[in-house]
Amino acid sequence: MAEAGEPMTMSIRRGDLRKREHTRASVEALAERYRTWGEWGPDDEVGAANRVTPEKVLAATREVRRGEVFSLAVPLDRAGPQSAGSLRANPQHVMLVLPTDPWPGEGDLQRFSDDAVYMPLQAATQWDGLCHAFYAGHTYNGRDTSSVTAGHGAKYNSITNLRDRAVGRGVLLDVARWSGHEHLPPDASIQADDLARCAADQGVEVGEGDFVLVRTGELARIRDAGEGWGRYAGGPAPGLGVGAAEFLCDRRVSGIATDTWGMEAIPYETPDLIAPLHAILLVHAGIYIGEIWDLEALADDCADDGTYSFLLAAQPLTITGAVGSPINPLAIK
Amino acid sequence: MAEAGEPMTMSIRRGDLRKREHTRASVEALAERYRTWGEWGPDDEVGAANRVTPEKVLAATREVRRGEVFSLAVPLDRAGPQSAGSLRANPQHVMLVLPTDPWPGEGDLQRFSDDAVYMPLQAATQWDGLCHAFYAGHTYNGRDTSSVTAGHGAKYNSITNLRDRAVGRGVLLDVARWSGHEHLPPDASIQADDLARCAADQGVEVGEGDFVLVRTGELARIRDAGEGWGRYAGGPAPGLGVGAAEFLCDRRVSGIATDTWGMEAIPYETPDLIAPLHAILLVHAGIYIGEIWDLEALADDCADDGTYSFLLAAQPLTITGAVGSPINPLAIK
Amino acid sequence: MAEAGEPMTMSIRRGDLRKREHTRASVEALAERYRTWGEWGPDDEVGAANRVTPEKVLAATREVRRGEVFSLAVPLDRAGPQSAGSLRANPQHVMLVLPTDPWPGEGDLQRFSDDAVYMPLQAATQWDGLCHAFYAGHTYNGRDTSSVTAGHGAKYNSITNLRDRAVGRGVLLDVARWSGHEHLPPDASIQADDLARCAADQGVEVGEGDFVLVRTGELARIRDAGEGWGRYAGGPAPGLGVGAAEFLCDRRVSGIATDTWGMEAIPYETPDLIAPLHAILLVHAGIYIGEIWDLEALADDCADDGTYSFLLAAQPLTITGAVGSPINPLAIK
Amino acid sequence: MAEAGEPMTMSIRRGDLRKREHTRASVEALAERYRTWGEWGPDDEVGAANRVTPEKVLAATREVRRGEVFSLAVPLDRAGPQSAGSLRANPQHVMLVLPTDPWPGEGDLQRFSDDAVYMPLQAATQWDGLCHAFYAGHTYNGRDTSSVTAGHGAKYNSITNLRDRAVGRGVLLDVARWSGHEHLPPDASIQADDLARCAADQGVEVGEGDFVLVRTGELARIRDAGEGWGRYAGGPAPGLGVGAAEFLCDRRVSGIATDTWGMEAIPYETPDLIAPLHAILLVHAGIYIGEIWDLEALADDCADDGTYSFLLAAQPLTITGAVGSPINPLAIK
Repeated sequence: MAEAGEPMTMSIRRGDLRKREHTRASVEALAERYRTWGEWGPDDEVGAANRVTPEKVLAATREVRRGEVFSLAVPLDRAGPQSAGSLRANPQHVMLVLPTDPWPGEGDLQRFSDDAVYMPLQAATQWDGLCHAFYAGHTYNGRDTSSVTAGHGAKYNSITNLRDRAVGRGVLLDVARWSGHEHLPPDASIQADDLARCAADQGVEVGEGDFVLVRTGELARIRDAGEGWGRYAGGPAPGLGVGAAEFLCDRRVSGIATDTWGMEAIPYETPDLIAPLHAILLVHAGIYIGEIWDLEALADDCADDGTYSFLLAAQPLTITGAVGSPINPLAIK
Repeated sequence: MAEAGEPMTMSIRRGDLRKREHTRASVEALAERYRTWGEWGPDDEVGAANRVTPEKVLAATREVRRGEVFSLAVPLDRAGPQSAGSLRANPQHVMLVLPTDPWPGEGDLQRFSDDAVYMPLQAATQWDGLCHAFYAGHTYNGRDTSSVTAGHGAKYNSITNLRDRAVGRGVLLDVARWSGHEHLPPDASIQADDLARCAADQGVEVGEGDFVLVRTGELARIRDAGEGWGRYAGGPAPGLGVGAAEFLCDRRVSGIATDTWGMEAIPYETPDLIAPLHAILLVHAGIYIGEIWDLEALADDCADDGTYSFLLAAQPLTITGAVGSPINPLAIK
Repeated sequence: MAEAGEPMTMSIRRGDLRKREHTRASVEALAERYRTWGEWGPDDEVGAANRVTPEKVLAATREVRRGEVFSLAVPLDRAGPQSAGSLRANPQHVMLVLPTDPWPGEGDLQRFSDDAVYMPLQAATQWDGLCHAFYAGHTYNGRDTSSVTAGHGAKYNSITNLRDRAVGRGVLLDVARWSGHEHLPPDASIQADDLARCAADQGVEVGEGDFVLVRTGELARIRDAGEGWGRYAGGPAPGLGVGAAEFLCDRRVSGIATDTWGMEAIPYETPDLIAPLHAILLVHAGIYIGEIWDLEALADDCADDGTYSFLLAAQPLTITGAVGSPINPLAIK
Repeated sequence: MAEAGEPMTMSIRRGDLRKREHTRASVEALAERYRTWGEWGPDDEVGAANRVTPEKVLAATREVRRGEVFSLAVPLDRAGPQSAGSLRANPQHVMLVLPTDPWPGEGDLQRFSDDAVYMPLQAATQWDGLCHAFYAGHTYNGRDTSSVTAGHGAKYNSITNLRDRAVGRGVLLDVARWSGHEHLPPDASIQADDLARCAADQGVEVGEGDFVLVRTGELARIRDAGEGWGRYAGGPAPGLGVGAAEFLCDRRVSGIATDTWGMEAIPYETPDLIAPLHAILLVHAGIYIGEIWDLEALADDCADDGTYSFLLAAQPLTITGAVGSPINPLAIK
């Protein structure tokens, strides 16, 4: 466990963080092992967030000791993090009314302002809904590709199912700091054993219904470079290896989030699949995936006080049919 | 105090709820009395949310007894609540990628879905930022109309200042139920004394830094009628009278939210001003205003267990320069 | 032929305009008869607009006698014509920069304004691209449903294929005026014979490559009522009957446009199909369909001078992958 | 005059194309000299497009000799030409309905597709409306900055005033080819004398009401480089010098368009002003400015047949309150 206030020496290199070889077969074996379809009934659309029971929520509120609140969202604006030409444009904020506009029928005494936004729902800090990924024609609980349509969006497994379920116990696993890096190298692939040892060294347990936040330092690296977001979204990135599924699924977590754009180690460990962990976690295990979370201030605080668990409130917007949602997750310690 | 589980008899009519006459002069007197400009420094943009200290947040988490979570957001979609032709269109959810789309360079094994939205930020369940209203050329802490521009939005007093401040103690004042109405009549104007007596009868205290949620039953009335949102947004509505400012400001709350589109009693009590409470609360007192909150399930639960206070997490999105924000407020009991 | 300047007496009732009974079988027979798939090669995406040859364009310019220009577009704004809650929202125009905004790094001497829009492409005056409709899994030239995807839009048969092809000879058939109506009754169904006789009485011929504009008076009826657009878009409307396909296809026109929202007589003449003329014209004949064209001023002018043909410039925007396009068609006489 | 079909030798360097020194004073002198305010009445919003009379339109149709149509629009899509983070995002095309969507209440026989776009109005091939620029608090015909508001857009001088006025005689001045360049060097500044000599050498006259299209080759340079749009929009560019105003205003043209993002030579010739030609042409002379026009195919054709005049149809969309408009200009020869 890190001593509170004691900066971890950079020369220490804990963790393996090497990529493993995986194939379609090994991924499908994990998917099969951890599939929860039917566990909460044939019509369930909530998935692993079913594990967030009132008892878990109540207990999570008792993690709060100081009342300190950390916003884990990056700014939503034209500056990033998406790169030019992406299907996911950066959020476009526009004004509908300005206080310099005369108000119809009124004099100059009173004025108002109003605004609007066009934004892809997964452009910045976000949750992927379960139906963000499909494998072999299906997503969570066996829904097929007709469950998401242009006209109605996600008829099943929309992120709105998390509307009252994304609050519970959060646990930060600061893999960058634990392994002695300011930020993980781009080819780092975090394995189940890395997560287990990081948790143990941090003195925190990960349990059923938890939301696990894994810090790679990648977001800080980009920000500190001061040259814009560049290839942050869409490019190579450190992240979780396929095997990390064992840690997350064995402990029966509800969600996993990182400070990278794609959560997984990219390029992927699978030559014949893309986003293999998405296939295992979203499609089969029903575990939610958060991306582009800003974990920096929270991580500094956890390193300071040695406490890596907290109350997390990361509720999505209630956009009917939404696959994903922009969020402003709060960690409350 | 309402007995848990005992439905309040509909024939009882508590509360006055009559409109009072107000003028520009009486509104300005209240605005002057409750103005907090400078209280948190000349550059402050947070306003009454400064009252949400870590101690308050910690205490609010201890309001949680069962871990029950209530989402207070209406659905964000084309069906409402805005009416046709409004500057505030209803949210337009669109798909960017569908699972029926072949994925570039991939076979049929893996598919994805992605989506986007165009939405006015105050179209549905929302917070008004302090700069939503200006009076005599200024808003909170003396910022003038140049503080909000088309190109940059709110340079000062953006709702993003609430990013880590909109979590704390929530108190529901179920004025409809308390006064013996299923839903308040359209001309009901809730006064300071009504709020005070409702709180007393409910057995709950309102204190510094609280977020007060006032239920009129108006949203349920519209929904139960089953004919769409109609004139819900923009039309006459029950709500708070000008005098309610005394209750809210004297108790030093941080925010006030209702289940109506405009929070105030509409038509306004002021023949020569529009939205007088917005001028007092947002512009002068720095108190945040929430609108179109769905308080029905929460209110039923409060009536059941007789407990009207809870932990509230109502954080805005972090849209740079945003005046207001769509939110999914959570009440946790 | 109508005498120039002589108003047609309202009591005259020319034209049959009664609905005919059609079935899936009779529609499919017409579709088969008029199918042009392969006529311009197996890879063609232009369809009947191939008939607009340079010679036709040159000849069309010689229709111009006075140089009078008529814009046939309705305003694109929040007021209509789409009704509340439609998937096709009305255009949302927003400002990006205002002249009241200080310009970065500049003084007050120079200011600018800039703007943006969110709009469905078929919300107002528009062209339907050929791929707007599919029948039995295919659209023009045999493309299947995979030819339009969420991520890339119309990979084949996009309206952008009309970018340099929507200019040619236009012919107005003022069926309302010809049949002695200010506006056609809502159940009017214009048949091939009605079109032929209207053309003959107007003294105009319809030929290969022409764009035919049929006026029902429906748009004027709505506008004159002065109560907003109401059910104009999506409701019952006079329009072309299934049999009108014979007139259009036999004469080998390139496009057909009306002053109604759906071009066809609605409710449709087919109990077991929707939009049967769309299936015949777009899918099989490759003839373009224009809707919500404002033909009023043009029709008045044609009645005045007895000349019903003109140069038409109705080019679409070049939105990559667009199915349809908002347009501002010009008739030049 | 260039011989038809004879490629101009690249070693010939005609034209001066050097930047001149200008100041606020010299720009204001030109603005004053060419100001047309009041010329078409105190309430006029049409400006120099008043010069496009029916006689001019009729004559322009007689420029057509072959019926060949050239679309001068670049594609409107995510790929460009705007750079990342610009207030002017690239157009975002999205699907509202896909043919893979089941149609409500229908079987698989019939399917439809529909789409929408979010786009800044000056992102690609476009017209600037007169109110795009303000100088010393005013724009064309003396309208002040309150004439454009967030809520209503351009109340005066909207580009929609061109709805039936942007059709007339077009003249291409291919300055790149004339001066012996494949594309002009980035510091080229085209002066009045360059335009006059280019026209004379091309054997074409520029007269009242014409729309003048000036080709620099800049768009082709970017496209041929094959590396995306890069700094095309917003960066340095060849273009018209301040003095070019004399050529355009003396000949009483209606509009001027180029194949660059800003029409003017950038960096500007004025150390103390930005966009000086915009101030002269839009604000004072009421002459419309087109940008990002693709003149390549048209220029090749003009070089081939030695004919540099044509019928131009460049009508804007009818977006109420729009400052500028995306367009698909057609040149018909």
